[in-house]
Amino acid sequence: MKQPDSIIKLINKFSSLPGVGLKTAQRFAYSVIDMTEAEVNDFCEAMQAVKTNVHLCTECGNFTERDVCDICLKRDKSVICVVAYPKDVLALDKGGSYKGVYHVLHGTLSPLDGRGADDLNIKSLIKRLEGVKEVIMATNPDVEGEATAAYLARLIKPFGIKVTRLAQGISIGSDIEYADEITLERALDGRTEI
Amino acid sequence: MKQPDSIIKLINKFSSLPGVGLKTAQRFAYSVIDMTEAEVNDFCEAMQAVKTNVHLCTECGNFTERDVCDICLKRDKSVICVVAYPKDVLALDKGGSYKGVYHVLHGTLSPLDGRGADDLNIKSLIKRLEGVKEVIMATNPDVEGEATAAYLARLIKPFGIKVTRLAQGISIGSDIEYADEITLERALDGRTEI
Repeated sequence: MKQPDSIIKLINKFSSLPGVGLKTAQRFAYSVIDMTEAEVNDFCEAMQAVKTNVHLCTECGNFTERDVCDICLKRDKSVICVVAYPKDVLALDKGGSYKGVYHVLHGTLSPLDGRGADDLNIKSLIKRLEGVKEVIMATNPDVEGEATAAYLARLIKPFGIKVTRLAQGISIGSDIEYADEITLERALDGRTEI
Repeated sequence: MKQPDSIIKLINKFSSLPGVGLKTAQRFAYSVIDMTEAEVNDFCEAMQAVKTNVHLCTECGNFTERDVCDICLKRDKSVICVVAYPKDVLALDKGGSYKGVYHVLHGTLSPLDGRGADDLNIKSLIKRLEGVKEVIMATNPDVEGEATAAYLARLIKPFGIKVTRLAQGISIGSDIEYADEITLERALDGRTEI
């Protein structure tokens, strides 16, 4: 049995969203049929509004609807936390204890994928280093993230600015029994006095 | 930190899709920002096209872009398989062995939710019973599905038509050890000679 063309087309669209397989896409498409026409139009307007209104903050590269984002406008600019993607800003800022600003690279160095320093939002980071006391590297603790952090550290240290890295160790609520060796080694290396 | 309004609005829209929580909706919204404007417009057109083009088959109530769906047009009308929702047609037809037509009720009887026989697509089922040899009840094996099947069976049997129910028993690939008692009881009751 072949489904109507417009349903198949919508299923394909939903499949392009991250982490959505055929079955889930199908469920989404069928739920769109159950929406009212007004709801569908609202949904579309919301999608298009995001494309029209949201662009990158000219200072940090995070998503904003203005020229400069709220964080860059209001917070302590002497500490910059460097992340790979806008979603990382969300995660780091949820705790609420960090009072500095962010800088979004929009990727990590990855020679294998042909992504070099020029493809990342690095130039604007160098430009805003005046008066900065500390740059925190908050890229993922994987090969690319570590390489990017090391590269930027070499670039920034000559300015006489302290460059730090997020602590690596066991996660809160996790089980030491099941932690991997490298994590445990890092946790031992970075142990603190109590 | 507050996200831009248009992103928050889009996250809310995505959260309204079935099975999508805040975190997933956020991921979807961020992926929309990464799309090109043409891709977003395409996506919206696909959503609106589904609302414009897809309606219910006048015979069986399944989704179609024409007056009568492909299945009703081409297949054996002497056997009707009654299901609760269009997605059930998809699941049942995937195997490809069933050659009859379907009838979609668009719900099940549920007095507690105030859903009675008049709220379901039952009248058109009665209308198409002429020349039908068998009606297969393929509603879910839960309280509402069983009640709906029993109700329809009482309605259809006086026409002298055979009414059957999907077999209930253990699923292929499942473990008898972990099957629940009722399923095992049904499997014993419905045992077949080999």
